[in-house]
Amino acid sequence: MRKLPELSHRHADHRSYPPGVAYMDGQYLPMHEAKLSVLDYGFLHSDATYDVAHVWEGAFFRLEDHLNRFFRGMDALHMSVPYGKAQVTEILHNCVALSGLRQAYVEFICTRGTSPDFSRDPRQAENRFIAFAIPFGSVASEEQMQHGLHMAVTDVQRIPPGSVDPTVKNYHWLDMVKGLYAAYGRGADTALLVDGNGNISEGPGFNVFAIKDGAAATPDTSVLLGVTRQTVFDICAQMGVPCSARNLAVEDLKKADEVFVTSTAGGVMPVTRIDGQPVGTGRTGPLFNRILAAYWQLHDSGEHRDPVMYPEPAGK
Amino acid sequence: MRKLPELSHRHADHRSYPPGVAYMDGQYLPMHEAKLSVLDYGFLHSDATYDVAHVWEGAFFRLEDHLNRFFRGMDALHMSVPYGKAQVTEILHNCVALSGLRQAYVEFICTRGTSPDFSRDPRQAENRFIAFAIPFGSVASEEQMQHGLHMAVTDVQRIPPGSVDPTVKNYHWLDMVKGLYAAYGRGADTALLVDGNGNISEGPGFNVFAIKDGAAATPDTSVLLGVTRQTVFDICAQMGVPCSARNLAVEDLKKADEVFVTSTAGGVMPVTRIDGQPVGTGRTGPLFNRILAAYWQLHDSGEHRDPVMYPEPAGK
Repeated sequence: MRKLPELSHRHADHRSYPPGVAYMDGQYLPMHEAKLSVLDYGFLHSDATYDVAHVWEGAFFRLEDHLNRFFRGMDALHMSVPYGKAQVTEILHNCVALSGLRQAYVEFICTRGTSPDFSRDPRQAENRFIAFAIPFGSVASEEQMQHGLHMAVTDVQRIPPGSVDPTVKNYHWLDMVKGLYAAYGRGADTALLVDGNGNISEGPGFNVFAIKDGAAATPDTSVLLGVTRQTVFDICAQMGVPCSARNLAVEDLKKADEVFVTSTAGGVMPVTRIDGQPVGTGRTGPLFNRILAAYWQLHDSGEHRDPVMYPEPAGK
Repeated sequence: MRKLPELSHRHADHRSYPPGVAYMDGQYLPMHEAKLSVLDYGFLHSDATYDVAHVWEGAFFRLEDHLNRFFRGMDALHMSVPYGKAQVTEILHNCVALSGLRQAYVEFICTRGTSPDFSRDPRQAENRFIAFAIPFGSVASEEQMQHGLHMAVTDVQRIPPGSVDPTVKNYHWLDMVKGLYAAYGRGADTALLVDGNGNISEGPGFNVFAIKDGAAATPDTSVLLGVTRQTVFDICAQMGVPCSARNLAVEDLKKADEVFVTSTAGGVMPVTRIDGQPVGTGRTGPLFNRILAAYWQLHDSGEHRDPVMYPEPAGK
């Protein structure tokens, strides 16, 4: 008879996690305590939807749009949480306020959850809500914001809408990760995926825009309908710049005057090289710079701004 | 100034989980303590691979095949764990032995893991290994084993190989879940998905076989190369039953004499109705019954059997 190892009573995790505050199971927790059962189908089947809003200088930006998409996603996946939009809003505000972060990345998630007997029937599971606020992060570094991203257009096909609805924000990213490794192998910073017809689709966490002869365009199918993407439509409309959602061939992108990507994680970010070749002049372009400035100016206007109710007065 | 909720120090989770034992971060833990950071990219990007082996009457079945697939999957995803096959084998044996389960479902997982600053670059993440043993479960209930499953052939497309390699076992299941809800809506027990050409693919956790005129066939592309699927090939070869992997149209399945599905979670399981219509006679067929008997007899032979080293003598 051999000696078995001891069973531990509590899991001890010695890894480091970013600062921030999470909410789950009715509790507000430091990030390093925010843990999900490994049996949750949000993990074991990636059966989950989520959204990410950002807080900039102490205020949420377009939170209502993120909440609407999140609740639509839950409906589409036959999921529900015991909170309405007002309660989720309060939880998100609390996470940010408790974290003290004035620039934050705020993710909220609904997973299929678990059933006590590990039933395979998703209807038997109790769905689970999780939210967390951590420091704001960006797809592009400061240096990349200055000089632009180098993007590789890969032949990896974005998971098609016939398999998974891309407008329901989801965690199915193995195609994105495959694209990233292919891009790194070619010396690029990030990757773009294609759709089933070889047209451009989206990249890991962002939509892409091409500007040609003063008009902007972005793919319309097999992509997430990003909130930052929508903000660019709004900005272009205000500026009188034509902006359309349509099929874009890889060549449309490579021959564009300017290219940029959009994400809640970073806003609007320039792409100055594609597959080793310069886009236009190879420097951030004039229309991109106007859209960038307008994007951050919008954060100061009241329209999309939802100030976090911190316990201390602002500025302290 | 408003009052904020209190921050809890430790997460308390009041849900019920199945019995069993998990291993992670160097510790053996009761299932209800096996928790993953919500920041792990295995969750947030479903960036993970895994395998499931089963223990039947105190012994693993074809564990080597599951381990080989798991290590191949990690290579394909640029992941690694600080354990070789011998150490993973020991961990799995320990989980089962500590659980005391003589019939077990044993899952082992490698996730992309986390990086302390939440970097978006998968190369910066420290990969994480998790294993657990819980009571054996099956795709089919006892009643369904007797009378057969009712399967709906959905128009949901299985995530194609151009997006995600189906031979690297993964958690991208939103297409499967969509198929399941469609199947439930039509009064069926489970769902089958199709590939990009409309041929049949696989279902939630199983491969499918059609028997026509004494010969068996199963799809060859856009499917996981299941270990139980391989066992059926082996059994058919032994029996002198022709068995091929090839494209199968939906009609091939509907006009088959017998249909069955294969999964580590349950073995070989009969399908007697498809979209409300009987398969063949509408009862479990003679060739299926022979394959079923052979499948369980194989568990008694030494060839694929790897007895768990329980602390107590067997039979006690």
